[in-house]
Amino acid sequence: MTEEENCIFCKIVAGEIFAEKVYEGDNFIAFSDANPKIEGHCLIVSKKHFANIIDMPASLGGELIDAIKSVAEIKLKAGFEGFNLVMNNLPSAGQIVMHAHIHLLPRKKGDGFNLLK
Amino acid sequence: MTEEENCIFCKIVAGEIFAEKVYEGDNFIAFSDANPKIEGHCLIVSKKHFANIIDMPASLGGELIDAIKSVAEIKLKAGFEGFNLVMNNLPSAGQIVMHAHIHLLPRKKGDGFNLLK
Repeated sequence: MTEEENCIFCKIVAGEIFAEKVYEGDNFIAFSDANPKIEGHCLIVSKKHFANIIDMPASLGGELIDAIKSVAEIKLKAGFEGFNLVMNNLPSAGQIVMHAHIHLLPRKKGDGFNLLK
Repeated sequence: MTEEENCIFCKIVAGEIFAEKVYEGDNFIAFSDANPKIEGHCLIVSKKHFANIIDMPASLGGELIDAIKSVAEIKLKAGFEGFNLVMNNLPSAGQIVMHAHIHLLPRKKGDGFNLLK
């Protein structure tokens, strides 16, 4: 079985595993994190399997920014006041699913969530 | 005084304030964080003043990915084994300098640094 055939995010992209979809574009989707660290926590994921940001072609950068903005605007319209983006690249950085993904963590003032202070 | 005239990152881009430069491209620079959370901590910053990712045009996405990859490769060649990317957007998310910037935190296995677990 190849890395992609065994990849949980590839299965979500293919519709083989359910995830609550927040956004879908040509090359990126976003869905709610199955183990949210905070309300509204979601993941922005390339449809194609790239292991990490180094593996991702720069030609997708415009669509990546559009996907981030689209999800952020959904969260800001829903009453959040800010958001953190976090991307762990390679296992030593805490990357668990080896399919490039960006955490979007919606924030409100005084929510008590601590990230990088 | 406008927001840009008073912006510490604009002053670094203009060379008016010193920072240890790690990378420079047409539209992005990277420099060591003045208050590093971990060895090698640096910031990837747009040369033009954008407040946050929502303010940044998608047309810069390709160059942004190239800048991230360039800095990451420098760190991986220097012996790091992975890296986290963190971007705080808007004050409620802990953004302190209102000029879009991405933290790159180089990592090694067992370094004891905790981010988003």
